[in-house]
Amino acid sequence: MLTTKGAEKAVEVKRVFLFNDAYKHFEGNRNIMREMLGGKGAGLAEMTAAGVNVPPGMTLLTSLCREYYDNGQKMPSGLFEEIKEELKQIEAQLDRRLGDTKKPLLLSIRSGAKFSMPGMMDTILNLGLNDETVEALGTLTSNPRFAWDSYRRFIQMYSNVVLEIAKDKFEDIIENRKHKLGIKADTELACEHLRELVGEFKALVKSERKVDFPQDTDSQLSGAVEAVFRSWNNSRAVYYRNLNKIDHNLGTAVNVQAMVFGNFDDNSATGVCFTRNPSTGEKVLYGEYLVNAQGEDVVAGTRTPRKIAEMSAEMNTVYKELEETALRLEMHYKDMQDIEFTIEQGKLFLLQTRTGKRTAAAAVKVAVDLSREGILSEKEALSRVEPAQLNQLLLPSFEPKDKQNARAQGRHLATGLNASPGAAIGEIVFCPDESERLAEIGKKVILVRVETCPDDIHGIVPAQGIVTMRGGMTSHAAVVARGMGKPCVAGCEAFRVDLDKEEVAVGGKVLRKGDLISIDGSTGEIFAGAIATHDPHFSGEFAVLLEWADKVRTLAIRTNADTPEDAVRAREFGAEGIGLCRTEHMFMSQERLPVVQQMILAHTTDERKAALAKLLPMQKQDFIGIFKAMKGLPVTIRLLDPPLHEFLPKHDDLLEEVATMKAKGVKGTELREKEALLAKVEELREANPMMGLRGCRLGLVFPEINCMQVQAIFEAAIAVKKEGLEVFPEIMIPLVGHVNELKIARMQLEAVARDVMQKEKFTVDYKFGTMIEIPRACVTANEIAEHAEFFSFGTNDLTQMTFGYSRDDAEGKFLQRYLEGIEWAGSTYKVLTGNPFEVLDQSGVGKLMKIAVEYGLQTRPDLKLGICGEHGGEPSSIAFAHQLGLSYVSCSPYRVPLARLAAAQATFGQEEKDR
Amino acid sequence: MLTTKGAEKAVEVKRVFLFNDAYKHFEGNRNIMREMLGGKGAGLAEMTAAGVNVPPGMTLLTSLCREYYDNGQKMPSGLFEEIKEELKQIEAQLDRRLGDTKKPLLLSIRSGAKFSMPGMMDTILNLGLNDETVEALGTLTSNPRFAWDSYRRFIQMYSNVVLEIAKDKFEDIIENRKHKLGIKADTELACEHLRELVGEFKALVKSERKVDFPQDTDSQLSGAVEAVFRSWNNSRAVYYRNLNKIDHNLGTAVNVQAMVFGNFDDNSATGVCFTRNPSTGEKVLYGEYLVNAQGEDVVAGTRTPRKIAEMSAEMNTVYKELEETALRLEMHYKDMQDIEFTIEQGKLFLLQTRTGKRTAAAAVKVAVDLSREGILSEKEALSRVEPAQLNQLLLPSFEPKDKQNARAQGRHLATGLNASPGAAIGEIVFCPDESERLAEIGKKVILVRVETCPDDIHGIVPAQGIVTMRGGMTSHAAVVARGMGKPCVAGCEAFRVDLDKEEVAVGGKVLRKGDLISIDGSTGEIFAGAIATHDPHFSGEFAVLLEWADKVRTLAIRTNADTPEDAVRAREFGAEGIGLCRTEHMFMSQERLPVVQQMILAHTTDERKAALAKLLPMQKQDFIGIFKAMKGLPVTIRLLDPPLHEFLPKHDDLLEEVATMKAKGVKGTELREKEALLAKVEELREANPMMGLRGCRLGLVFPEINCMQVQAIFEAAIAVKKEGLEVFPEIMIPLVGHVNELKIARMQLEAVARDVMQKEKFTVDYKFGTMIEIPRACVTANEIAEHAEFFSFGTNDLTQMTFGYSRDDAEGKFLQRYLEGIEWAGSTYKVLTGNPFEVLDQSGVGKLMKIAVEYGLQTRPDLKLGICGEHGGEPSSIAFAHQLGLSYVSCSPYRVPLARLAAAQATFGQEEKDR
Repeated sequence: MLTTKGAEKAVEVKRVFLFNDAYKHFEGNRNIMREMLGGKGAGLAEMTAAGVNVPPGMTLLTSLCREYYDNGQKMPSGLFEEIKEELKQIEAQLDRRLGDTKKPLLLSIRSGAKFSMPGMMDTILNLGLNDETVEALGTLTSNPRFAWDSYRRFIQMYSNVVLEIAKDKFEDIIENRKHKLGIKADTELACEHLRELVGEFKALVKSERKVDFPQDTDSQLSGAVEAVFRSWNNSRAVYYRNLNKIDHNLGTAVNVQAMVFGNFDDNSATGVCFTRNPSTGEKVLYGEYLVNAQGEDVVAGTRTPRKIAEMSAEMNTVYKELEETALRLEMHYKDMQDIEFTIEQGKLFLLQTRTGKRTAAAAVKVAVDLSREGILSEKEALSRVEPAQLNQLLLPSFEPKDKQNARAQGRHLATGLNASPGAAIGEIVFCPDESERLAEIGKKVILVRVETCPDDIHGIVPAQGIVTMRGGMTSHAAVVARGMGKPCVAGCEAFRVDLDKEEVAVGGKVLRKGDLISIDGSTGEIFAGAIATHDPHFSGEFAVLLEWADKVRTLAIRTNADTPEDAVRAREFGAEGIGLCRTEHMFMSQERLPVVQQMILAHTTDERKAALAKLLPMQKQDFIGIFKAMKGLPVTIRLLDPPLHEFLPKHDDLLEEVATMKAKGVKGTELREKEALLAKVEELREANPMMGLRGCRLGLVFPEINCMQVQAIFEAAIAVKKEGLEVFPEIMIPLVGHVNELKIARMQLEAVARDVMQKEKFTVDYKFGTMIEIPRACVTANEIAEHAEFFSFGTNDLTQMTFGYSRDDAEGKFLQRYLEGIEWAGSTYKVLTGNPFEVLDQSGVGKLMKIAVEYGLQTRPDLKLGICGEHGGEPSSIAFAHQLGLSYVSCSPYRVPLARLAAAQATFGQEEKDR
Repeated sequence: MLTTKGAEKAVEVKRVFLFNDAYKHFEGNRNIMREMLGGKGAGLAEMTAAGVNVPPGMTLLTSLCREYYDNGQKMPSGLFEEIKEELKQIEAQLDRRLGDTKKPLLLSIRSGAKFSMPGMMDTILNLGLNDETVEALGTLTSNPRFAWDSYRRFIQMYSNVVLEIAKDKFEDIIENRKHKLGIKADTELACEHLRELVGEFKALVKSERKVDFPQDTDSQLSGAVEAVFRSWNNSRAVYYRNLNKIDHNLGTAVNVQAMVFGNFDDNSATGVCFTRNPSTGEKVLYGEYLVNAQGEDVVAGTRTPRKIAEMSAEMNTVYKELEETALRLEMHYKDMQDIEFTIEQGKLFLLQTRTGKRTAAAAVKVAVDLSREGILSEKEALSRVEPAQLNQLLLPSFEPKDKQNARAQGRHLATGLNASPGAAIGEIVFCPDESERLAEIGKKVILVRVETCPDDIHGIVPAQGIVTMRGGMTSHAAVVARGMGKPCVAGCEAFRVDLDKEEVAVGGKVLRKGDLISIDGSTGEIFAGAIATHDPHFSGEFAVLLEWADKVRTLAIRTNADTPEDAVRAREFGAEGIGLCRTEHMFMSQERLPVVQQMILAHTTDERKAALAKLLPMQKQDFIGIFKAMKGLPVTIRLLDPPLHEFLPKHDDLLEEVATMKAKGVKGTELREKEALLAKVEELREANPMMGLRGCRLGLVFPEINCMQVQAIFEAAIAVKKEGLEVFPEIMIPLVGHVNELKIARMQLEAVARDVMQKEKFTVDYKFGTMIEIPRACVTANEIAEHAEFFSFGTNDLTQMTFGYSRDDAEGKFLQRYLEGIEWAGSTYKVLTGNPFEVLDQSGVGKLMKIAVEYGLQTRPDLKLGICGEHGGEPSSIAFAHQLGLSYVSCSPYRVPLARLAAAQATFGQEEKDR
């Protein structure tokens, strides 16, 4: 905000700037320029300065709007005098004067806040007309019809905006008149008809407001400016700001600008256009125009505008001028522009320019093209693309229009959690076996379950997508689906799934097996029937942009991958290693689960070892596949992490079965076996499994499990090395909270590794390290680093422990309320501004990470540092990882391109981001 | 350890010190003295220096023992020469010489480590005797029988310790001889018999070891020293060190000392005594002695020693000398001593002194008495008492002897978790209603349950003690019992409780309703039948000591109390306020639970408010009671904290009931109602309730609950103030992890407080603050302190979250293993050295607390800081709280005296503790 140095100087502080003065005054910082002048004012100032033909005008600073409200909605004192003072220069430049009965100047009065709020606030055109100046305008332009048309438009608009008389009433008068005359188009109204309309309009105003329509042009101007200030807080604008999280205290600037007339004659026109195609990025003007019209005609939709390409034929000279101007603006702004223009008697005027909104595909192409054209440096090109947009380019998605249609047809069934992005269409199946069977005969199916478990994996793999009724973003279905890049809508509670009947009840409808549905894992929406999809745009420019990103970034990008297929995909997307290979998923496949259960239910260590011996060759094959896929890139393998009961049948199911058997009088072996299983499951059951026997605790209590895994890793590594390939395994011990956990586990496991290497007479370069996912690990990182060659921040669990939130419970029970806000005494108070499981909480979790990095490097200056939680694929979190000085982030395969770009952008300073 | 400055100087470093030289060399630091000379050596050196009559001798440093082992069990080179060098001075002083055939010197060789390991290592007496010196000794002392008795003793001992020949073989020879002679006592053996025994002993050695018994006195000495080094690692000693957590690397010193003879004649004796009564602290010599005997005779138990008081009559002069010496030693050591002495021909020699072990009662009395006698300052007296001991003084406990008897009689049934200390005896009841009924007719009962729940509270209150089969240290039974100071043994899995049959099966026995049992909540032991108890010793000295503590300490001591009864008790014990009043226990009493359930199961906010309106007057009465009991001391009230499902019937029970009803074909309302309840319980059920909807999250989602509580607090405060009493409520909001949680909750609740105060036209001084129990709260304490007037560290939850341990799961599943150590390749590796739920983890949890304190004070320099977790009653954690600069600790009522003393000790520097 402008501050005054001493109250006596208040009057000297400028609050109103001519466009060309404004640019000089605020030059060099676009952010402040937009804040003070609003987006539109800043654009007008910049265009003027850039030599683009802009009708002269002035901008009233946004601070005046705030002053207006602070002042109990009174116009800031002295403001009108300032406006008049600046106006003199415009009048002199144009040799016209406001209210002059010979050479009247007409003005447009437009709002313009820091952030674009299209159509939400008010605009007044043709200001300065009254009963006398209208005649002068007619004479001056030798076009009385134009003059009277402008006057009736002005009365309509002014009466609506300033005097707050409903638009319809004026439209009714026009319609009546046209009806009486037997004509259809406004353009058929002759000058005398318009003159009569003006009379009727003035009579309407008098009857509605008991005063005459203001003839004094100063009053008109002052009223219009105040109306724009007032429109900042109209209900539309407030709603829009709430929706878009725009600060209500910013206020709007007001732009007072000399009128130019697209409706002057047939050599005049008005239009809007993008300097490039916003959908594809192609370098061609893209927009619409209307001949002999003002902007409001385009908006009103009464006449159909024409494609801008046609202008090349119709008005070739001015089209070329428009092309040149577009180029000039792009050169100036170094970006694609979205412009408004008016042509008055063949002369081009620009009324607005702003950065054009575009699709992800266009964003990439425009950035790369602008750089190739020499307008942007590669770095600047990189900063033009929003990393989060890139996901659009990697996934098939539904055609937005077809989705809209489906909605209109009432085919939207429900919305669940957007657990794994992408679009999928298929027939409903409820049973994993059936999913497998149907997929084998070429059917596309969507697997619908109450929730999924490891037993279902054979049905998940062949399905197009997954829907679950229960479970959050970290439920089995969600995690497995994200790992596979398969669309998944989880926790869709509106789906009342009845597995016995093979039916889903949803909002009064019933869906049955074989019914076609479409699911959007990016939004969580589910539709009946099929919706048209489009394939990912994976253009050449996309690859080029990412190569540029690779040159700039210092963070390495790894991937979270548990299978050779994921590993290959991630490498194609540019992953430089695996940052997290979760071994538990390898335990969950259908043929292995019985062996895993055998291991868990073992009564003795020997029984356990026998089961593990069966798993060893399978694990070895898993690792051979992954090592080969990664072709010598480092692979971080996390040893078994989840609590063992996750591999066993569900406790509640067993309890119900046993109770039912007992009630029905079942006895003997069948009951006893079931009861024994229930007893074992109860023994492993925990009050808070998240904080129980899992991670390295499991490995310390049952060392045989980890030993088998390490044996498999080293045997696999040696097998691959014997084929002449390179392998760099990094063994990661999860959930370490105390240095001794790591120290002891490492001692045990390195002994196993040495044994394998000695036996095979082959050495393997390897590293031992740990997840940092327990708060205690962060504050004792100096001790832990003594025994860890790398730290990988498991930001999912670290967020859970640092906040004390169980993610699955929090998301259903209170996190949503925290994000939406707590209602109290008529206001809403947000507890959290972002979901910490999506965007890394820098001030809390990040603080602990910072401590861990500092302490860890104190002990071991060459400590390798990374993130392998889901935040590793979120742009602001990647930027934070860069700031912390980490070596790499690891994310799911489909997020690798995003991460490459975000990591590049993270190297840019604040200044580069503001430009 | 001694370090050598340059290898060439190695030989100049002294490793063997005469007693008087040793004191001069190490004077001023008792810790180093004990470390280098061992406890016994340090005592001998100090006694010598203090002018007490000690036979001259030398000490071989403990480092030599380490060197012996580092060197592959070889004697350090040059050591024997050093010993001989020092020996010259002793020989000169006494005018006797080792191996001299005229005036032979006899030596004792004794072990002595830093920490006392009584009887675990070896001792050799009478060294220096051989076939020639024995004759000289006989001549010199004119007592050949004594000489030959000493010689046969020496051969026995040396052969056993150095030559490793079993003792029995020598005893058999003696017994045979006595049998042949027809005599019973050793003293009846005449000189010639002893001479013959020596011949037989030597023959035994020859036949066992194929060599003659060593006649060379230098070989004897060198062999004896090595044997002492060796005995450091005998199995007894290793076991003892494991048991007492003594470092295996310390090593033992060796004391080589001139012999004096308690078995010289009837004017000689040997004895042990405490300078005061170690059981009561009374100032009187307390011990035993034997005339004409050596120390081994006392140990052997062949003759019954006499009480030391009898010595006053029998050997009055020397008894007075002993009293004087005791006084001198107490003056020197400023503490009660445990001494060994020998009288040779009426002359008193001291052979050992050490700080005497004592009961808690004695510790308090001795410390206070020593101070009153001018030997200790008040501060020193305070440092002499171990705070943890004080609990003994506040609880009834079982007579140790009677417990031992019960054990011998096989009445020990089982040992569970020592969940709440104290001794209780009563008849078994299984049903809370019956507990209540029997207690009303004056029966003493022990309530035995599988586990307890809020419904059982009416049966817990009247019971003498509680036993549960399931549940850990924080289970309902444990927490409630500790709160009430009622003995409880929890998680006693050996008790197979059958509630239907009203039986417990335990180790093959079956206990039934009405059977008498005794439970020790301090140890977790359970016995059949009654065991004698003794009442707490609450002596005047105890009160005096705590008054001294109060003068010194800077930490305030508050209490955790939820009822007026607890509050009164805690105030009697010296509590200066309530640091934690948990309101959830108020919701759990039998008459309130249905209303609480009504509130939870409410379908609308109005229904919930109606239930809360019923609770309001009850809560108000609770607070009135507590405020009155605390008489104007501050009362910190924590708003409702636990997840709501804790107040509802158990999920598994409902699930079983519903399954059973269905299997039996039950239909209609009964089933539907049960299913509806199950559905609600399932809705509230959480995967990890510890990290779910609880604490302030509950208050933000359902503000009505907290609002009711705050209304009750302020109405109660005003009611009490209207009676003219002072009240200082401090409202504590639990589980805050983000500043906004506190900010919003405080805004809501202060509005309620203002409303009450306005309505009642009365103001109350109050504070708003928060628990710090979430790691995120620690690292964002600067933000949180903006809205909190106090922080109270909830170290229980903070420990859970910082470690990522769910306490209930951890204790059963892996914590015990972590504490006992992980077995690997024949060794045991401890993961944790202490249970972090008992002793605050200073390096992890403490680090976060330190950050929170620093950040909190940055924002609000007058922030009040305290601990209200269970660590608030643990001495080392209290010392840490003092170091952190907290204002107070809060603990359960029975721990308040302990905390007062620990807080006083926390103000002492390291130097004061070492002394």
